[in-house]
Amino acid sequence: MVKKDVSKAALALHKKLRGKITIGSSMQVTSRAELSLIYTPGVAAVSSLLHKNPKLARDYTIKGKTVAVISDGSAVLGLGNIGPYGALPVMEGKCALFKTFANVEAFPIVLNTQNVDEVVEAICAIAPVFGGINLEDFKAPQCFEIEERVKARLDIPVMHDDQHGTAIAVLAALINASKVVKKDLKKLKVVISGAGAAGTAIAKLLLKAGVKNIIMLDSRGIIDGTRQEPHKQALAKQINPRKVKGGLQQALAGADVLLGVSGPGLATAKDIRLMAPRAIVLAMANPSPEIMPEEAKKGGAMVVGTGRSDYPNQINNSLVFPGVFRGALDNRVTKITDTMKLNAAKKLAALVKKPTAEYIVPGPFEKGVARAVASAIR
Amino acid sequence: MVKKDVSKAALALHKKLRGKITIGSSMQVTSRAELSLIYTPGVAAVSSLLHKNPKLARDYTIKGKTVAVISDGSAVLGLGNIGPYGALPVMEGKCALFKTFANVEAFPIVLNTQNVDEVVEAICAIAPVFGGINLEDFKAPQCFEIEERVKARLDIPVMHDDQHGTAIAVLAALINASKVVKKDLKKLKVVISGAGAAGTAIAKLLLKAGVKNIIMLDSRGIIDGTRQEPHKQALAKQINPRKVKGGLQQALAGADVLLGVSGPGLATAKDIRLMAPRAIVLAMANPSPEIMPEEAKKGGAMVVGTGRSDYPNQINNSLVFPGVFRGALDNRVTKITDTMKLNAAKKLAALVKKPTAEYIVPGPFEKGVARAVASAIR
Repeated sequence: MVKKDVSKAALALHKKLRGKITIGSSMQVTSRAELSLIYTPGVAAVSSLLHKNPKLARDYTIKGKTVAVISDGSAVLGLGNIGPYGALPVMEGKCALFKTFANVEAFPIVLNTQNVDEVVEAICAIAPVFGGINLEDFKAPQCFEIEERVKARLDIPVMHDDQHGTAIAVLAALINASKVVKKDLKKLKVVISGAGAAGTAIAKLLLKAGVKNIIMLDSRGIIDGTRQEPHKQALAKQINPRKVKGGLQQALAGADVLLGVSGPGLATAKDIRLMAPRAIVLAMANPSPEIMPEEAKKGGAMVVGTGRSDYPNQINNSLVFPGVFRGALDNRVTKITDTMKLNAAKKLAALVKKPTAEYIVPGPFEKGVARAVASAIR
Repeated sequence: MVKKDVSKAALALHKKLRGKITIGSSMQVTSRAELSLIYTPGVAAVSSLLHKNPKLARDYTIKGKTVAVISDGSAVLGLGNIGPYGALPVMEGKCALFKTFANVEAFPIVLNTQNVDEVVEAICAIAPVFGGINLEDFKAPQCFEIEERVKARLDIPVMHDDQHGTAIAVLAALINASKVVKKDLKKLKVVISGAGAAGTAIAKLLLKAGVKNIIMLDSRGIIDGTRQEPHKQALAKQINPRKVKGGLQQALAGADVLLGVSGPGLATAKDIRLMAPRAIVLAMANPSPEIMPEEAKKGGAMVVGTGRSDYPNQINNSLVFPGVFRGALDNRVTKITDTMKLNAAKKLAALVKKPTAEYIVPGPFEKGVARAVASAIR
């Protein structure tokens, strides 16, 4: 689905840039006197101070301003398990966006292991240099355990963006889309296709936001209590109150919202016609959505969003992660809580003064997006 | 030994800078079109390419230009085992110097573990993003095992700078100092105080350079075959051909060179008087040398160097490491060999056209230092 000329232009640009971030020295070092301040012997005073009081590292080193963007390459974009080198360009892109959108300095780390224990140990080992950790493109269900274990061990904010960044962006979009279609957010009948990292986090955050009627599908159909995976079992108890059985079509019958976080080729216009009037379709698989916007509209959807930058209503984490870590760094937050996530979604939605079918979330280049999200992370 | 005003100024400067390196975006991202090239959907083409051919990461990502400066904080400057936060300001300083002296982009990593296995695993886990690894301030003897194991597992250059950067700088200094005192390098009687990372690597490189008469001391005196540590046992067979026994004074009797890589308070003018005429004293402990230059001169030393930037003849790794990794990156070197190290020392020494007692190595800000060293790493 990615246009050939975009791929070609992207390859040429990457080869020209040779890395999407640059590292510079904060200060021109031009004399022995300066050298003796930033390096030996002067730096010894700073080292001694931080040895005695590690908390001051935020004031005297890059720790106060720097986030790690870490991936094991196990679930990159829609490309799947393509390993650390496949993941690196995406992580670099994220670092460039951190800087562009929120002046957060971010450094990419891609891991040469996908073993959960080794991933956790590596992340905890390198944590001292960072003021926050953005986990990225880890596959489910390992991502849940990795995030929980790393969070428990570190005193800096850790967020798996595929989960929580996506969930915050989706909640913001639904807050405004529900106004456009004139339905009550909490009464929406929501279908989520995909029970991976994003789907799971979206379901949890929507439940926290008061949405009660959620049906989730994985590759075997509507999720019920028979699933083996612990994260699906836990969710099954909280969702699907009408005990609907079957597949996508059974789930969509009368639904108000279809959220796609599974992959391309999920639905057709015919499927969308099963939904309630004034349906909302957010098809967010990247780069190829679950249903193309033209097709969803053909099926009668009133509000359509994707994860892509070449269609209206780009429901993308890039609206969220820069601001989350901007706020976390500025306010020295050590954990990103559910309340912060709900507030971030509300702040993001509130930036759109008059939501319309083509404008339910701010564009990525609108001013104030990161600042609004950051204001919720305190 | 660090002057109080230097410490005070260094603390103030670090607090003002809040990190000695900065991360920026390589490209201003100002439109959706640009966003779709550096991020989704365009980046997917680059990710797919690097998944299939990881070697191309050097051409399409920061891997081609970026070095990690990694420490576990177990042997920082002369301060000892002060942990990751104590080490961080030094590693950042090194990164700033990499950029300043050789336009190498370097990122500091400080580890929250000093367990050898965990250190090795963490370094190998994060290696994919880097084009080289500068190990720094790891204590002996763990540093030897860590370097060997990491080198064996990775296909990028790995160098423990406290060992090899120091050894290259010392050999360069001795090449020129031997000219000043009109003695043959290979016939020099050399005493090395300190059998840690630096002392061990210096002894090995001097042996490779043809120096035959080396006596080494550790805290228990002159090293002989009775030492338990494997690295000292291995060295004992190659050094001390005259089987001198005892301590510093026995070692110094008639010696041409004293190399201090142990710590402050080692020797007095009286000790230096035991040495041969036209003695060379390089007292490199940082920030406080084994003997202050004034005292060494009082004892009759003809050429005196330290590791400090506030005295002449600064024998510092900063002459070496930027150029080593500049050369390694430019020439896609995967291992730093002994031959490269010997050549780097010769190239560095050759920059000083007419060595004098006060000028045996180039100053850190002299033009062409990094380029000369880089030319040997191929």
